Amino acid sequence: MPQGKPDTVPDDGLTTRQRRNRPLVVVHTGAMKGKSTAAFGLALRGWSAGLPVGVFQFVKSAKWRVGEEAAFVALGQSYERTGEGAPVAWHKMGEGWSWIQRAGTEQDHAADALEGWRQIQRDLAAERHGVYVLDEFTYPLKWGWVDVDEVVATLAARPGFQHVIITGRDAPAALVEAADLVVEMTKVKHPMDAGQKGQRGIEW
Amino acid sequence: MPQGKPDTVPDDGLTTRQRRNRPLVVVHTGAMKGKSTAAFGLALRGWSAGLPVGVFQFVKSAKWRVGEEAAFVALGQSYERTGEGAPVAWHKMGEGWSWIQRAGTEQDHAADALEGWRQIQRDLAAERHGVYVLDEFTYPLKWGWVDVDEVVATLAARPGFQHVIITGRDAPAALVEAADLVVEMTKVKHPMDAGQKGQRGIEW
Repeated sequence: MPQGKPDTVPDDGLTTRQRRNRPLVVVHTGAMKGKSTAAFGLALRGWSAGLPVGVFQFVKSAKWRVGEEAAFVALGQSYERTGEGAPVAWHKMGEGWSWIQRAGTEQDHAADALEGWRQIQRDLAAERHGVYVLDEFTYPLKWGWVDVDEVVATLAARPGFQHVIITGRDAPAALVEAADLVVEMTKVKHPMDAGQKGQRGIEW
Repeated sequence: MPQGKPDTVPDDGLTTRQRRNRPLVVVHTGAMKGKSTAAFGLALRGWSAGLPVGVFQFVKSAKWRVGEEAAFVALGQSYERTGEGAPVAWHKMGEGWSWIQRAGTEQDHAADALEGWRQIQRDLAAERHGVYVLDEFTYPLKWGWVDVDEVVATLAARPGFQHVIITGRDAPAALVEAADLVVEMTKVKHPMDAGQKGQRGIEW
């Protein structure tokens, strides 16, 4: 592992081991693509550390992120077969969440997003996963569908060892404030600027 | 897939389909952690698109990135079993590269790095992989162990459909110039600032 040395050592009475076992809230934000991709990279690392992975996709179209989903489903199956790694649960709003069986009626996206958040609250309370990816979760926060202060309070009070990674543009200030680690993806150069289309294996 | 609309459409005589099938050179640079993590996230997407993945780790210690390695080895095995996804090859400098069998003598890191690059050149010429991750490759470039102009020329001349993702701080200007997509990871907030140690499942 990296030999990162902290600039300061907190006077919190904790041992190094205790400080190593603190679960993190991570936010990937910024205008550049790569926020979700990096989040799934982190989840990959969690998986191989034996932390159960729970993904919640707050996007309208269930067609997005099929690439990562296929890979994580394969990793979940690999775990079931070999016991190496960890279980994987993949939920998406676009299909009405996987724990809900309902008719294909027109959906209220706000209610749907809130339902997803309620499930995350239940999973956090039950310590169901070790790594949560709340993909594109900043948008329901931004649009007021889910209350930011409630999210911050739930995250602060979550029990056990549960990392939570949240992606999306325009992360609310209260969330950034509450997060342990915030990465902003900055665009330096993107092929779409030169009129190039999304590439197989890269964009989808 | 995302409905990104390019700002301009190039007058290159290519169809949209042709423009969608251009392999990319991607650079993840910047002072923040997450460069490699995001690269492995991209490789994950390539894997599920059926592109064979080749990883070359230009780091001294083979102990790094064990998390990602375990996950990608599992994905490679999953492919062998089910035919879904793609093969995975994982090489690292710290173990004298996996294609070289040699005694445990003291190594010349510069020669070792150059050897890794020569293998990448051979693999590119043979179109062995669909996605290459050259992890921490900017350092041998920066230190003059591998010639940047040669790298740029090799990448420009590579045949077929091969994405190449390069990570590391201080990407040389010539490489940034040659890349199709450059992402800079910018630190907004990091727990090490507050004296926190690396976390299981996140940092390793």
